[in-house]
Amino acid sequence: MDNRSSEKSTSPHYDIVIIGAGPVGLMLSTCLARWGYKIKHIDNRAEPTPTGRADGIQPRSLDLLRNMGLKSAIMAHKPARVFEVAFWDPPKNGKGIVRTGTWASCPSFIDARYPFTTLVHQGRIERVFISDLEKNGVQVQRPWTIKGFKSDDKVDPEYPVEVHLEHVDGHQRESVRAKYLFSGEGARSFVRDQLGIKITHKDPITHVWGVIDGVVKTDFPDIKMKCTIHSGHGSIMVIPREDNMVRLYIQIASSTDADWSPRRTATAEQVQASAKKILHPYLIEWERVEWYSVYPIGQGISDKYTIDHRVFLGGRCLNPAIIDNKYAKLFSQRPPAAKEVQAASEQTSEQAEDNAFVKTFKESCEFTSGYGVAYKPNALNWSPAHIAKSSLINPRGSKLRTGRIMINADVTRVVDANVVHLEQEVPLNGAFRIYIFAGEPAVTSRALEDFALRLSSKGSFYSSYLRPDIDSVSHHEKHNPHSLFFTICTVFAAQRSHIEITQDVPSLLARYRDHIYADDRWDRRVPDAKAAAHAKMGFDEERGGVVVVRPDGYVGIVTSLVEGSGTVDALNEYFGAFCTNKLGEKMAQL
Amino acid sequence: MDNRSSEKSTSPHYDIVIIGAGPVGLMLSTCLARWGYKIKHIDNRAEPTPTGRADGIQPRSLDLLRNMGLKSAIMAHKPARVFEVAFWDPPKNGKGIVRTGTWASCPSFIDARYPFTTLVHQGRIERVFISDLEKNGVQVQRPWTIKGFKSDDKVDPEYPVEVHLEHVDGHQRESVRAKYLFSGEGARSFVRDQLGIKITHKDPITHVWGVIDGVVKTDFPDIKMKCTIHSGHGSIMVIPREDNMVRLYIQIASSTDADWSPRRTATAEQVQASAKKILHPYLIEWERVEWYSVYPIGQGISDKYTIDHRVFLGGRCLNPAIIDNKYAKLFSQRPPAAKEVQAASEQTSEQAEDNAFVKTFKESCEFTSGYGVAYKPNALNWSPAHIAKSSLINPRGSKLRTGRIMINADVTRVVDANVVHLEQEVPLNGAFRIYIFAGEPAVTSRALEDFALRLSSKGSFYSSYLRPDIDSVSHHEKHNPHSLFFTICTVFAAQRSHIEITQDVPSLLARYRDHIYADDRWDRRVPDAKAAAHAKMGFDEERGGVVVVRPDGYVGIVTSLVEGSGTVDALNEYFGAFCTNKLGEKMAQL
Repeated sequence: MDNRSSEKSTSPHYDIVIIGAGPVGLMLSTCLARWGYKIKHIDNRAEPTPTGRADGIQPRSLDLLRNMGLKSAIMAHKPARVFEVAFWDPPKNGKGIVRTGTWASCPSFIDARYPFTTLVHQGRIERVFISDLEKNGVQVQRPWTIKGFKSDDKVDPEYPVEVHLEHVDGHQRESVRAKYLFSGEGARSFVRDQLGIKITHKDPITHVWGVIDGVVKTDFPDIKMKCTIHSGHGSIMVIPREDNMVRLYIQIASSTDADWSPRRTATAEQVQASAKKILHPYLIEWERVEWYSVYPIGQGISDKYTIDHRVFLGGRCLNPAIIDNKYAKLFSQRPPAAKEVQAASEQTSEQAEDNAFVKTFKESCEFTSGYGVAYKPNALNWSPAHIAKSSLINPRGSKLRTGRIMINADVTRVVDANVVHLEQEVPLNGAFRIYIFAGEPAVTSRALEDFALRLSSKGSFYSSYLRPDIDSVSHHEKHNPHSLFFTICTVFAAQRSHIEITQDVPSLLARYRDHIYADDRWDRRVPDAKAAAHAKMGFDEERGGVVVVRPDGYVGIVTSLVEGSGTVDALNEYFGAFCTNKLGEKMAQL
Repeated sequence: MDNRSSEKSTSPHYDIVIIGAGPVGLMLSTCLARWGYKIKHIDNRAEPTPTGRADGIQPRSLDLLRNMGLKSAIMAHKPARVFEVAFWDPPKNGKGIVRTGTWASCPSFIDARYPFTTLVHQGRIERVFISDLEKNGVQVQRPWTIKGFKSDDKVDPEYPVEVHLEHVDGHQRESVRAKYLFSGEGARSFVRDQLGIKITHKDPITHVWGVIDGVVKTDFPDIKMKCTIHSGHGSIMVIPREDNMVRLYIQIASSTDADWSPRRTATAEQVQASAKKILHPYLIEWERVEWYSVYPIGQGISDKYTIDHRVFLGGRCLNPAIIDNKYAKLFSQRPPAAKEVQAASEQTSEQAEDNAFVKTFKESCEFTSGYGVAYKPNALNWSPAHIAKSSLINPRGSKLRTGRIMINADVTRVVDANVVHLEQEVPLNGAFRIYIFAGEPAVTSRALEDFALRLSSKGSFYSSYLRPDIDSVSHHEKHNPHSLFFTICTVFAAQRSHIEITQDVPSLLARYRDHIYADDRWDRRVPDAKAAAHAKMGFDEERGGVVVVRPDGYVGIVTSLVEGSGTVDALNEYFGAFCTNKLGEKMAQL
């Protein structure tokens, strides 16, 4: 059936068309499916990634997967967990290699729930997303490919993008209209080519690497660690995997070689022979090779990710980067000396030199853990340039940074006395998370009453986005009883047994009874704090403060909690910067 | 087909016949199936427990399920977790009920990994076991029942038990021979009746309770907590469950009532009406009733659990008890006063009175958590009466108690730098776990060499139980490379980066390369210790010690670690008390 010639108005309409069902396309699809959007998702492969290809999940990505309720399905595969990186180098006088140091892969200066990288077969990650998608009624259409698209506001302002799809066998075709088109095709992107967006090779290709996933027999002692190995014969990076497997990246050519070619290739046997030389005096043999490839290193970065905000480009990889090019390049160029690794280690950080390797490694720890992601100021991420100018914003002492992830904290849930991870309490469901750190009940009771009153006032950001079905919402609804766009959490600096919800919490906030917490858990990072979560966020333990966290877990704005209308006024200014409902128009119904 | 008349020699032979596929029968079956035993397992129900019936999993049972690799499958059902118990009583002057205190359900004086009770539908627990059984080739035969059995050594000394089984429809019969017969039928046990073993009602029935599982709408603030509620109208126990459900135990009759009858019954509506009266002034309504029953309280304890050590009786419940009778009786008799609960709370334990309620509650905390289980001295659980008399046994300072669970500790695995729970490192696979706390490598190197040498000596407990296939065991085998009966873990009181397996660990111990650990994790329970795991066990941080842990996680014996043959000599004495191979007969092959 060829739909391409059909009338525009009869084409099926979707909120979004997603091309490519790698981890990035699937992450987007999974989120949007949960929020009820109508999705057309295609992939040109007949099935998810088969055997081979480990994918590394960063500490921060694991937080995110947990927030989506998908972490346990991934951990059920018993992935390898990388806590440390070991460095191996040629000894000063002699041949072979020796361990010159180790480094925490997510050092304790990063406050991570899961301070390790998780290595698991990419197909398994894909299947976890696919299974969740199917629960929400979305099937990835396979093996289908994109043949063309056009974005034109004038033809249809609501569904401006026309997309032509085709079965890979060429016999079936389909045309659809969508609000948005997203390409998760990765490096070889049809959509990017059509848009004429170029890949900028910031660095020319200077190294060619082989990669082998498989099961080995070796006496190399760090085969279950992440290692960077330099020897007179070249370099290897070791990445452990699940099921006794290991991934080895093996350098097979460098631009400094006499016979250098960026198109250099090699057989699996040749790459294994290189590995044996580099690892000498240790022995290594492959019992099984699961997957094998050769590729040049030269990080490509797109000039742009969209032209008209209707058609977007994404990558294929779940994390911003597993091997960042800057580090990989540095690592390829020359081995770090033992003293550099030493200087980079936490114990002796005061001796650290201003050394490119050490500095890059330290920076890349934050980056590769995912905790280094920092969104720039804009309407969502408050900065002094934001239109919200209230003096209550960004109170003195706050340790929360807008555009950065919310700080982790343990608290006790009041209704059931469960000890919980505060930052995980609102599932990833598209809603903003308003955390009221309510300090001491006796001190803040008036401020809390005022906050609740102003929230329910006509025209507040909150009462402008009430659910149309607010009167028929089940009393079991935990997260969004009033609005699909907001969940409110209230955290008191008090022992759980001293908090009486019916007395201490205004009724609007008390409706979120599963989101009322006692900040009464001891935390080693603030051992002397009376209320550890307040202290970690940098709030006064008596007076508290308010944090708005974006639906993806990043901090939007931080304000003081005061009596009167000031706190909600400040939040109205903030939300007014990007809310499409004009605040103040709707009647409050609370 | 009627096999009952067939010749004994042609009857199918099994290691064990298990009657009843409740949690206890399934736990036994699951373990034995993993260890390769041939099992006939029947149940008279057509399918696992359908909707209804929550089962509570104690903290210690959750440890055990994790050790079997089954915890995550259970936690995937998002069970309710009970961290605290709340007490509600009539106010001193007035009507209704008020909260008089709360109590941690597994207080911090118990060093539990999971200090909460997990509540989940019994059928879900059963299905987790059944799925694991099926992986090991065992199917529960349903709906079949036992019609007779006879145990006679003379007919067949190896398979003395003849068991007659029948399909519940009466059309199919089967006779089998087995080494053992186990009844997990619970209170109404055909096997117990046949053996003539009586149930001793230590206490006559004095109370009748109704139980309702369902979804409620209520303004009672502690509906998500475990509560014991006393009012002028009777008593209720509240147990939260998964999926917004709650179980209520409601007292409907007491032997002090004028119209008392232990056979008293009641409809669901009558029980709900009682609950409404007891909870007044709070309101409660049932949106859905999932399961409902009425039963008398009067704990039955069998006189014996076996007659000839061939036919055994078990219960139906996974834990020793969820509601212990002693506590339930006390709870039924009269409400605890607020000051009793106060006295029982940790903060004011120094003020605790010698009060029956407080004392019983404190004892029952240890019991109901599962951490109070203490096996009496016997051949497996060393005591001064044991035939092993070495002076190295039970060294001064040891905090490990034979017949009790091993103490929890975090350590760092050397090969991959993973932070792990030491007590969980050897899976429940039928092997004894020999933990060598190796102190400081420089201090104990000679003692470790001697220990390894004596283990591999002819006739040691270790070399008497080598695997017949020892020469063909894969180098990937982590737990049992030499013997199916022993796994060896070595824990150094040193930083991970300072341990070099090839230099610090004798080769016999180094073969267990995935079981070599650094005791370098800080623990809040021993904040000043240099080596927290050594300190928690009560071992000298320099000189260490050895613990033998039974396959089920309980401590068998503790010894010093010394130079010379003493340590292995002491273990030879211990194992000699129950090993059927006479130690000293086989050649060592290591």
